[in-house]
Amino acid sequence: MSIEKLKASLRTVPDFPVKGILFWDVSTLFKNAECLKELEDILYELYKDKGITKVVGLESRGFVMGPALAVRLGAGFVMARKPGKLPADTLRETYHKEYGEDTIEIHKDAISPDDVVLIHDDLLATGGTVAAAARLVSQFGPKAVCINFIIEIEDLNGRAALPEGVEVSSVIKV
Amino acid sequence: MSIEKLKASLRTVPDFPVKGILFWDVSTLFKNAECLKELEDILYELYKDKGITKVVGLESRGFVMGPALAVRLGAGFVMARKPGKLPADTLRETYHKEYGEDTIEIHKDAISPDDVVLIHDDLLATGGTVAAAARLVSQFGPKAVCINFIIEIEDLNGRAALPEGVEVSSVIKV
Repeated sequence: MSIEKLKASLRTVPDFPVKGILFWDVSTLFKNAECLKELEDILYELYKDKGITKVVGLESRGFVMGPALAVRLGAGFVMARKPGKLPADTLRETYHKEYGEDTIEIHKDAISPDDVVLIHDDLLATGGTVAAAARLVSQFGPKAVCINFIIEIEDLNGRAALPEGVEVSSVIKV
Repeated sequence: MSIEKLKASLRTVPDFPVKGILFWDVSTLFKNAECLKELEDILYELYKDKGITKVVGLESRGFVMGPALAVRLGAGFVMARKPGKLPADTLRETYHKEYGEDTIEIHKDAISPDDVVLIHDDLLATGGTVAAAARLVSQFGPKAVCINFIIEIEDLNGRAALPEGVEVSSVIKV
């Protein structure tokens, strides 16, 4: 199977969640056993030699491939969640969205300075959420950070929002 | 590693999310690479001979181990989500909670009558959400359904809320 076949398995939904947005739906890839396995293999090949010790997944679609990849890499999995969802002490980062602001949290004991962290989410659009996640992870002072997406919408140039010097990869560019 | 060691890796947080509730926090297991791998191996051994073709994970913590298990089993992964999160046509099920009601959705094209479905979530407490998920999955008319949890709070007797004749398993009983 090729990247093109994975790309062909994605569904686009116009005007979701709001009018004028074309939504790239990764669920049609996840439900297909062959695509799901291929995606895990591709992610593993990308990161197998990077010394990753923690994969951080962004709520909620970043929870899907993040842990599967963590198991393959021999790493742990850490949830980055919306406010009020994590039960113990957290570090947090607030960021601006089109309307108002939002906050993302990680448990204080989830990442240590010895860790090499891979931040994973399903989609890079304008990059606001993942940029906040990168700032949040940097609060823990890990050895290194890299960032991965399943899908990258190239026209939105979300990479410009991400911290300089952080290695960024995406599997499917649209 | 034993089930007892996995159990010892769980954290309990009193009075979360509300006063009087003891929260079983599976995040301390997920972040530990050895525990995460062991958990995946245990789930795989439980289900490797069941002919599972789709793993349905309940938002959001059911998204963590569901897909990793799906890849190991050669199955697809399907998200069961809160209302308004899935972009295409869905089937839905509404259920009563302590205060008010809630709805769970699955994409209409995500499960077929040929599928053998495993519903997965992190925790069985009173069982209201997963019972609704089981009714929702049965709307698709799959060949068979079984249900799995990482943690089961035995005193709450959540199994009584689940459909009769459905095979239920849990890894850690507390």
